[in-house]
Amino acid sequence: MFEVKALALWPGFRVTAKPKASAMAEKKWVYSFGDGKAEGAAKLRDLLGGKGANLAEMSNIGLPVPPGFTITTEVCTAFYENDRAFPAGLKEQVEKALADIGNSVGAHFGDAANPLLVSVRSGARASMPGMMDTVLNLGLNDETAAGLGKRAGDERFAYDSYRRFISMYSDVVLGVEHHNFEEILEYFKEEQEYSLDTELSADDWKNVIARYKERVQEELGKPFPQDVNEQIWGAIGAVFGSWRNRRAETYRRLHNIPESWGTAVNIQAMVFGNMGDTSATGVAFTRNPSTGEKAYYGEFLVNAQGEDVVAGIRTPQSLTKKARLEGNDKKPSMEEAMPDAFAELAATFERLEKHYTDMQDVEFTVQEGKLWMLQTRSGKRTAKAALKIAVEMVGEGLIDEKTAIGRVDPASLDQLLHPTLDPDAPRDVLATGLPASPGAASGTVVFNSDEAAAMRQAGKDVVLVRVETSPEDINGMHSAVAILTTRGGMTSHAAVVARGMGRPCVSGAGSIRIDYKTETFTASGVTVKKGDIITVDGSTGQVLKGQIPTLQPELSGDFATLMTWADKYRRMQVRTNAETPHDAETARKFGAEGIGLCRTEHMFFDEDRIVAVRQMILADDAKGRRAPLEKILPMQRDDFRQLFEIMQGLPVTIRLLDPPLHEFLPKGDEEIAQVSEDTGIPADKLTRRLAELAETNPMLGHRGCRLGISYPEIYEMQARAIFEGALLAAKETGAPVIPEIMIPLVGMKTELDFLKARVVAVAAEVEKEQGKKLEYSVGTMIELPRAALMAREIAASAEFFSFGTNDLTQTTFGISRDDAAQFMNDYLGKKILTQDPFVSLDIDGVGELVRLAAERGRAARPDIKLGICGEHGGDPASIAFCEEVGLSYVSCSPYRVPIARLAAAQSALAVASGAAQGSGTA
Amino acid sequence: MFEVKALALWPGFRVTAKPKASAMAEKKWVYSFGDGKAEGAAKLRDLLGGKGANLAEMSNIGLPVPPGFTITTEVCTAFYENDRAFPAGLKEQVEKALADIGNSVGAHFGDAANPLLVSVRSGARASMPGMMDTVLNLGLNDETAAGLGKRAGDERFAYDSYRRFISMYSDVVLGVEHHNFEEILEYFKEEQEYSLDTELSADDWKNVIARYKERVQEELGKPFPQDVNEQIWGAIGAVFGSWRNRRAETYRRLHNIPESWGTAVNIQAMVFGNMGDTSATGVAFTRNPSTGEKAYYGEFLVNAQGEDVVAGIRTPQSLTKKARLEGNDKKPSMEEAMPDAFAELAATFERLEKHYTDMQDVEFTVQEGKLWMLQTRSGKRTAKAALKIAVEMVGEGLIDEKTAIGRVDPASLDQLLHPTLDPDAPRDVLATGLPASPGAASGTVVFNSDEAAAMRQAGKDVVLVRVETSPEDINGMHSAVAILTTRGGMTSHAAVVARGMGRPCVSGAGSIRIDYKTETFTASGVTVKKGDIITVDGSTGQVLKGQIPTLQPELSGDFATLMTWADKYRRMQVRTNAETPHDAETARKFGAEGIGLCRTEHMFFDEDRIVAVRQMILADDAKGRRAPLEKILPMQRDDFRQLFEIMQGLPVTIRLLDPPLHEFLPKGDEEIAQVSEDTGIPADKLTRRLAELAETNPMLGHRGCRLGISYPEIYEMQARAIFEGALLAAKETGAPVIPEIMIPLVGMKTELDFLKARVVAVAAEVEKEQGKKLEYSVGTMIELPRAALMAREIAASAEFFSFGTNDLTQTTFGISRDDAAQFMNDYLGKKILTQDPFVSLDIDGVGELVRLAAERGRAARPDIKLGICGEHGGDPASIAFCEEVGLSYVSCSPYRVPIARLAAAQSALAVASGAAQGSGTA
Repeated sequence: MFEVKALALWPGFRVTAKPKASAMAEKKWVYSFGDGKAEGAAKLRDLLGGKGANLAEMSNIGLPVPPGFTITTEVCTAFYENDRAFPAGLKEQVEKALADIGNSVGAHFGDAANPLLVSVRSGARASMPGMMDTVLNLGLNDETAAGLGKRAGDERFAYDSYRRFISMYSDVVLGVEHHNFEEILEYFKEEQEYSLDTELSADDWKNVIARYKERVQEELGKPFPQDVNEQIWGAIGAVFGSWRNRRAETYRRLHNIPESWGTAVNIQAMVFGNMGDTSATGVAFTRNPSTGEKAYYGEFLVNAQGEDVVAGIRTPQSLTKKARLEGNDKKPSMEEAMPDAFAELAATFERLEKHYTDMQDVEFTVQEGKLWMLQTRSGKRTAKAALKIAVEMVGEGLIDEKTAIGRVDPASLDQLLHPTLDPDAPRDVLATGLPASPGAASGTVVFNSDEAAAMRQAGKDVVLVRVETSPEDINGMHSAVAILTTRGGMTSHAAVVARGMGRPCVSGAGSIRIDYKTETFTASGVTVKKGDIITVDGSTGQVLKGQIPTLQPELSGDFATLMTWADKYRRMQVRTNAETPHDAETARKFGAEGIGLCRTEHMFFDEDRIVAVRQMILADDAKGRRAPLEKILPMQRDDFRQLFEIMQGLPVTIRLLDPPLHEFLPKGDEEIAQVSEDTGIPADKLTRRLAELAETNPMLGHRGCRLGISYPEIYEMQARAIFEGALLAAKETGAPVIPEIMIPLVGMKTELDFLKARVVAVAAEVEKEQGKKLEYSVGTMIELPRAALMAREIAASAEFFSFGTNDLTQTTFGISRDDAAQFMNDYLGKKILTQDPFVSLDIDGVGELVRLAAERGRAARPDIKLGICGEHGGDPASIAFCEEVGLSYVSCSPYRVPIARLAAAQSALAVASGAAQGSGTA
Repeated sequence: MFEVKALALWPGFRVTAKPKASAMAEKKWVYSFGDGKAEGAAKLRDLLGGKGANLAEMSNIGLPVPPGFTITTEVCTAFYENDRAFPAGLKEQVEKALADIGNSVGAHFGDAANPLLVSVRSGARASMPGMMDTVLNLGLNDETAAGLGKRAGDERFAYDSYRRFISMYSDVVLGVEHHNFEEILEYFKEEQEYSLDTELSADDWKNVIARYKERVQEELGKPFPQDVNEQIWGAIGAVFGSWRNRRAETYRRLHNIPESWGTAVNIQAMVFGNMGDTSATGVAFTRNPSTGEKAYYGEFLVNAQGEDVVAGIRTPQSLTKKARLEGNDKKPSMEEAMPDAFAELAATFERLEKHYTDMQDVEFTVQEGKLWMLQTRSGKRTAKAALKIAVEMVGEGLIDEKTAIGRVDPASLDQLLHPTLDPDAPRDVLATGLPASPGAASGTVVFNSDEAAAMRQAGKDVVLVRVETSPEDINGMHSAVAILTTRGGMTSHAAVVARGMGRPCVSGAGSIRIDYKTETFTASGVTVKKGDIITVDGSTGQVLKGQIPTLQPELSGDFATLMTWADKYRRMQVRTNAETPHDAETARKFGAEGIGLCRTEHMFFDEDRIVAVRQMILADDAKGRRAPLEKILPMQRDDFRQLFEIMQGLPVTIRLLDPPLHEFLPKGDEEIAQVSEDTGIPADKLTRRLAELAETNPMLGHRGCRLGISYPEIYEMQARAIFEGALLAAKETGAPVIPEIMIPLVGMKTELDFLKARVVAVAAEVEKEQGKKLEYSVGTMIELPRAALMAREIAASAEFFSFGTNDLTQTTFGISRDDAAQFMNDYLGKKILTQDPFVSLDIDGVGELVRLAAERGRAARPDIKLGICGEHGGDPASIAFCEEVGLSYVSCSPYRVPIARLAAAQSALAVASGAAQGSGTA
């Protein structure tokens, strides 16, 4: 093995360890391509990276690819496993492959008279910005540059290439930043009174090159490497080294790319787009990546090398005449300027789409009229384009429906379902928080929920701004067009409820300071008062000053078509979490097949019933609780009747009261005084009861079924409301509803037994009173580790399980959602966690409990109905897991229903094709 | 099957279902005994109950037992499984067995001329007060009473027996309460101007009997049953029915007796202690159950039946002459009054002890000079007696050491290790709370910890009275002789810390109202002021007015002997949870073999360091935290040095900082002002930082290793203090300590890796600075469900696991210890839980996670050291589980060390003998 110690300095080769076995020495590290054939192919993407695999594939199908070779991702792995030393055998294989390229193009690496120049590019399995990208023209030094000039008969071209090489190599390999060279060039041009680079002559470039080399010497204390071998190993080392630079790591974390994949290195004979006006370089998409329209899309530059396009120094020209006319471009399009090369390119586009059956993103160079393909890959696209391309390609016969389903990222649908800010409108960003609930809206700032409701009634659009929200704010949140909080994460109360309601929400905007007293907030030095207008963009997390125009979502024909296909191939049902008629209707519109979670406590906060709820909580005994419960009964009955009517025929799972009672009580002296007046309960009694109900850890306190056991009359009232509501709805709609009554927070079978007996007794009473037969089932949430472990026992009594993965994640990790913000970012930053387990299910830990519970539950009751109703029910990766475990349904907030439908279809297809899913957290 | 609908009314026999199979009809429901032989034996205790099994056993070894039979516990099970109907075949078997008794004694059940009378008694597997106990003289009615009188030649005896039967049967079977009959008898005696029952003649009894029967008719609306078959089936039904009466259920819950065991019924020919002055009845122990002394112990009554002894109407006489003299008894002892019968009884005692190899508790009757044995069972005894008997029986060669170890209930040792209230002193109980930490002490009431410390320094014994305690009260708790709180359960902060310190504590005394402002509390209408003296009995939960004298514990020779034997046979090590030198020394005295849990945060509260701790918490960045950490370093180093010196050579496990930082900060404006003065940090900054640190669910918040990851410099300081302390102690004692550094609250391997790397780096630094080699290990708590599930991965980095079953129970159940008091009693009362999982490990749920983690941890690291350091480490049932799982050690509070040593020995012996343990919660 030989080592690359510091990437900016070439220490020479040093063998640090003998090859362990001949097998190692013989290992194939290098795969060559070009000349209409290749050792690799597209399917070797894991080994060759995306770029390398596609260069091989293009060679194989006879496209013009400059000859070259790929150093495999296994070398990257070996490099890091061996403390940044290259594996044995690599040196020889690279030298041989370089010689082969030379033989192919008739030039030789380092040959003074006839030098081979190469490009060196990284290429991971997935496209990865942030890594070292490209070094062009490698192999040039003072000698070979002179030789190249002579051989090409174009000295200017040779020195232009050399100066490009020095600045590029120095920047990405030696760490001498680009601005050093820009400064020198700018200074030289001023000196010579040039305005364009093209004005520089060969001698001018020689002069610039001398200054470049001086600067490198100054910065590094050693000269720019003249040895071409030192150049090429330096570049290879730089590619591998960049796999773990900070930007690459950040990108991987954000996109869940495992570090273990590694990158490949592609080394390829140079072709020159800078050999005069019959040469050019360009980038293109085979279709429009923004709209999905079937039209070539791209740009090119005459007499240029690849980096000129990216650098934006010169304005590139359009590819097609049509695009030129649409863009009011003066300069000719490639179609007009280089008709032959363009025709070959267009033919190549068709060839590529047919071969890859997907829209491609390509790089090409034209050298003296001849087209060379330097890269092809599936093109990134907007959600809208993805939809259009997928649907149209089915129409064109390129792909089938199943493939089309896999071509759209479910999460990206969010962009299509919510209003978005007009991308062309100017933005004045006050602060950026977490993108907690997508969509954008503008409104008048208010700081409390009652006022939000009042202003809404007065016809105003309001944005509710709070430090954090609690269940008492439900009304205000409903009244607001958007919600902004300064505390709490992606799964804080505000975020969860806002997503459920489809309201845009930015949470945890920590740089905003709210002053409730003066009813103002300050951010970025600006003070915003109550009544001012702001815009909240829940898709990006931005909080903006003033009103920004928005674009309304179009649930276009392509969307509907894809959803129909998804529904055809998915196995799991998709339900919604909903408790208001509005949410239930929205969800139906989005295709929900029932309600998976109706949180009854949300029905307790309405102004006309909170008084009765409080009287119930403050009563001294069961008898005292019954009177207010009787007041609440008809209201709850009506809640359920409405939901049942909307969901006619579809299943509705109703969770009985879950949160600790103190959530319903007033906070602070003022509120207490008000409630005392409303309820007639003395303030001191209220205060005492509040103190009694206060809890150290309410999440782990007197809530869920524990309330039902302490106060059975509450659950009895709720059961009665459900049964009576079901009978009313059945009479109205003729489609009888089969309510699924769900007991929350069960950890022991005895808890469920105790409460199920009471629900069954109430059902019997209602049946007797009304002379009708009721159909219903009683089941439980599995949201505590103990419930998962004891699932076999619990399933003896539970007719269904619904995995409450929010709480299950909290207890399995011992992390409170409400408090996680304190350290979650730190954890993600320090790579302790690769993803927030409240956003995407922790498959290793929480997932194992789900798996165990499913197995054990089925062992006791083979036909047990299993679903998931946590936030994860709308997360594609989590849905894939649910499919693997074989759940019956997922339930998510209304706006996530389409996402879940698509993700469920993808998961079903993946499971059917045997592609196992699964990702780890730690 | 035939049914017993209401136990008080005999509905006749009704066959409700046909026997399912001939196997059922042939099942043996009845086992007979007597006449020197029996169908059963002692080993059939599960089937025959304790009483029935021992009656059979006594018959088998030739002791004089009146003939009878046992209806098995399987009948009880069948009875409840079949909605209180008796199984098929029972009727015939009982009739046959009754006939057999009749043949044996030459009398016949229901025969008017020569009636057989029987007793009917319950008998469960374990002794169970609260159930229907005994009906004597069953088989008497108007006819048979007359026949009995003639045949016995003693009419008075016959009618005395008849009246006893009517009142007893009516009370326990028919539900006509005893006082009805007492009133009639008292009234009759007044009428007749009698003072003693013995003054009543046969005719008097007839008169009384007539009135008894009238009263039964009045109360029930039907006559007292004259049909002897109705009588016997009513009694049998009453025994089975009483298995589920409220008192029996309460008893079972308190003693963890499964309801599924059921009770047996014993029916036995009557022998009569009321046939004149050569007849008697008595109860006795073969040794003194209070002291353990080897001396017969008991009492008897001449011319009486069993219930007279219990009823306490007449004063019983001593058994032995020695006891009579010691008790200054006037009446002769049995030894003197009935020398022959006594000699036979004494011989029986010796026989029984030899046969059962344990102290026996017997009932006997002498009928006309002949001794009959009615019951024998292992006698209940005090902890002190249990110790003495076990040790002496080894000396006598009756049992071996292993058996002796099993004879002492480990939990009962608590009685011996703490001061107890003088049982003879009068008590004025103010309130009763939870017996949170055993022992008793009296002192002056104070309401805050600072004052407690000050008064302690002034030489006063103080009792700290708080609503609840927090880590800030540690100093005050140390200064107090006892602690009283009005909130919190058996595992509240106060309870846990008090047990750790060996301070008596009563927690959750909810009827006490504290008024901090006036420094008073009220209870039972009494107001207690600061400075008043109260007594706290942590063994019973009582809070008493004034000073009550206490008895000091004697760690006598028997105690030491038993402990030596226990140490010989146990496999698991016993460590202690300790952080102060005092606790560490106490634990060593009690036999601790190291420290299993040293909670470093307890060291942060000392007055001289809390200022620095607060400065650290309030610093703005890592740099700001380093200065105060440097102030704390030498103090922590000295803490560890002291512990290491005390524990020389023994392992010491140190947990790095665990609780959320806000626990160290002041609460309330006054404290904030004080701290602002102490630290020089402005009050508003303090207030802001407090708000930032406030958490919704601190248990699930920013604590444990999450602090270490956010603020690595804290753990680095602690690691340095440990390593430097270890080197100092090694130098001082020559016995090098190998510290075990424990990272708390790990849920992911990445957390442990991150922190372990820092600990290792600090160790390397210290080694380099001091030029010495350090030996240490780094491990983790397993206290989150995810840690248990991921144990295989975590064990790759962790050199040991310590199960923190307190937190693991909290997260597995989703129950906060601090808040559980709200519903835990309700849960126990409603049988949702059979035991508090914070007191005894929930083997089904939490235990499964422990088992999984042990398996998985060993799979990755076969020699991984496993221990438990939760409160359960001192609970015998939990220790048995730890032995089964094969943990290396248990760690518990110092005062629980002897309990753990004994329990570990019992568990090791049980596992060795293949007796599987295990109990369920739900």
